[in-house]
Amino acid sequence: MKTSREVMVNHDEVRRAFEESHLDALIAVSPENTFYFSGVFVRTQISIRERLALVIVPRQGEETFIVCNIEESLARSQGWLPDVRAYVEYAQSPLELLADVLRERGLAGGRLGFEERFLSAAYYRELQARLPQATLVVADPFFIRIRNIKTPAQIELFTSAFQRTEQAVWNAWTASKPGESEKVVAERMVQEMIKTGADGPRHMTLAVGENTIHPHARPSDRALRSGDLVLTDCGAVFGGYCSDIARMGVVGKPSRAQVDAYKALYDTQRETIAMMKPGVTFSQAFTFCKEAFARRGYVMLNPQIGHNLSLLGGHEDPLLHPFAHEPIRPGMLVCVEPSLEMGPHTRLHFEDLVLITEKDPKILCWWDAKELLVFQ
Amino acid sequence: MKTSREVMVNHDEVRRAFEESHLDALIAVSPENTFYFSGVFVRTQISIRERLALVIVPRQGEETFIVCNIEESLARSQGWLPDVRAYVEYAQSPLELLADVLRERGLAGGRLGFEERFLSAAYYRELQARLPQATLVVADPFFIRIRNIKTPAQIELFTSAFQRTEQAVWNAWTASKPGESEKVVAERMVQEMIKTGADGPRHMTLAVGENTIHPHARPSDRALRSGDLVLTDCGAVFGGYCSDIARMGVVGKPSRAQVDAYKALYDTQRETIAMMKPGVTFSQAFTFCKEAFARRGYVMLNPQIGHNLSLLGGHEDPLLHPFAHEPIRPGMLVCVEPSLEMGPHTRLHFEDLVLITEKDPKILCWWDAKELLVFQ
Repeated sequence: MKTSREVMVNHDEVRRAFEESHLDALIAVSPENTFYFSGVFVRTQISIRERLALVIVPRQGEETFIVCNIEESLARSQGWLPDVRAYVEYAQSPLELLADVLRERGLAGGRLGFEERFLSAAYYRELQARLPQATLVVADPFFIRIRNIKTPAQIELFTSAFQRTEQAVWNAWTASKPGESEKVVAERMVQEMIKTGADGPRHMTLAVGENTIHPHARPSDRALRSGDLVLTDCGAVFGGYCSDIARMGVVGKPSRAQVDAYKALYDTQRETIAMMKPGVTFSQAFTFCKEAFARRGYVMLNPQIGHNLSLLGGHEDPLLHPFAHEPIRPGMLVCVEPSLEMGPHTRLHFEDLVLITEKDPKILCWWDAKELLVFQ
Repeated sequence: MKTSREVMVNHDEVRRAFEESHLDALIAVSPENTFYFSGVFVRTQISIRERLALVIVPRQGEETFIVCNIEESLARSQGWLPDVRAYVEYAQSPLELLADVLRERGLAGGRLGFEERFLSAAYYRELQARLPQATLVVADPFFIRIRNIKTPAQIELFTSAFQRTEQAVWNAWTASKPGESEKVVAERMVQEMIKTGADGPRHMTLAVGENTIHPHARPSDRALRSGDLVLTDCGAVFGGYCSDIARMGVVGKPSRAQVDAYKALYDTQRETIAMMKPGVTFSQAFTFCKEAFARRGYVMLNPQIGHNLSLLGGHEDPLLHPFAHEPIRPGMLVCVEPSLEMGPHTRLHFEDLVLITEKDPKILCWWDAKELLVFQ
């Protein structure tokens, strides 16, 4: 899908970022920011960290997209930026080309916003050396605020990715049987993801019984046995729009303790979501959730219970943790994922995508999992 | 699989690194180095960049493994290091805990090797502030040299990952038909990867005809038509041991030009591999390959034709490019992947895993692709 700058960039937020920051240009370099401003997800930006792909976003005028020449045809064919410049790897540093373009644009002595939390120490030092006249300003918070408020087109793409992933899990789980191993069930989930149009899994935790205690364990040969809880935290890749959900099941008839714990988890998550209206802070939602668990007699141990959703499916600030005092804003997409422990070796986890609106938050799920799915 | 420090760490190379560097400790922080020294691939180290997982490797004494408390049970159950320390995200910075442990170990004023090419500028500045007495030394080259010489256990794991991936491609391609789309063939390849025991694809380029010109295009709805060349550059994830291969096919009877170009590619790759003996430099192998193409009347445009193989399947220095004057050493695993252009819109690409030995290099392939695989 070739998208457009018009519908994928939040122009109001970009304008506001420049007003507040007094920057002359933003230099996007992380995979999520480069994707955001170019429309191109350069896969090797993640797998080959030093092959930088950058977008110069000037306060005024056109953006410039800088890529390795290996990725130039991709950048030209899939992106929306006409000004693409390519460097030849190993013969020229990406930051040398960046400095050249900034000089050409009259920006080499300006206030330049860079991503301190992404750019490596080595590249940062090189940037300082190549642009001695520039004022380098930490711009991570500006990038995050721009990305926080999703456009309708982005919301549509993410909703589709999440709902397809839920369907894949549902299809795989209802086709699975007691006695099969975690690995077999996880393979079926991956196959169902592919059937729904995913490129592949983004992450795949599938754990039963005592293995649920590890938040990110790989599926093992452990068989699903009667009475086991089944937990997945998984996501699928749909281009740059990845999903991230968690669902729970049980092998055979659930015990009373399992039913109660799951109901406490579900109800608490839904109540927490219901109070996430504009003006409430992320830390308030965290505290609300923690107290709701405590009222029900459960201990919530997680240091965070969710996160804004990043392009490429990652966590994006603000997270739902006790130190995030930013207000929740309309247009945010938040993954709400509390978890609780039931005894020393069992963890329950549940995650949905939520759109913050001016009024009530909207849960964008396909599978409203009020009860544990029974493997039988 | 629970591996052991004994067989997965190259102790001779670690000893040599400390002798040459005069460091008091190495601080491993990138996913590949943390995995190397702990035996644990912490997936969120890639997807949640700021959730650092570090290993302190002192010149003498035991290593310490520092992880986010969310990953603590994973670190304890899958790794081999007994000294695991956990920080609570957002309440404590990972580098605060690192500084505490270094003080406890009497290393806070020592010569500490850090990864300049991985650590973000923000974390680097924090490290300087938290360890004012320490001498921070760029240690990336030492880490790379340690990892360059693979242990027999690593070679076995990588060989298995590559050969299973080749089988998956073979199985998927021989089951595919003209008229199917790139997407359908790619989905079949992913399913075959899963069948061979992979967790999922690491990367998946499947391109036909004019799409072969993009090195990393996503599979599209373009159908396989008679006369098209078919190209894949793909890899599968087997825990931390990922594969990275490239293979070529043709739809129906190949043209004379296609047969000739592919033969030139295959023969040149094999000749280049044959000369990769200890003492030859990476740049010499690059030049040899380029000249061999030229002798055959083809232009090699790539700025590099291969790379040492990193844990997690990425590129590891030295690469096969004109500026890498390091000698090829026994025990290295090198992916050799030249490509050539045939006319303006078609690219041929071919990649195998090679083990450098004291004598002849050994190609670790399962599918010795002397000819284009025919889709019929």
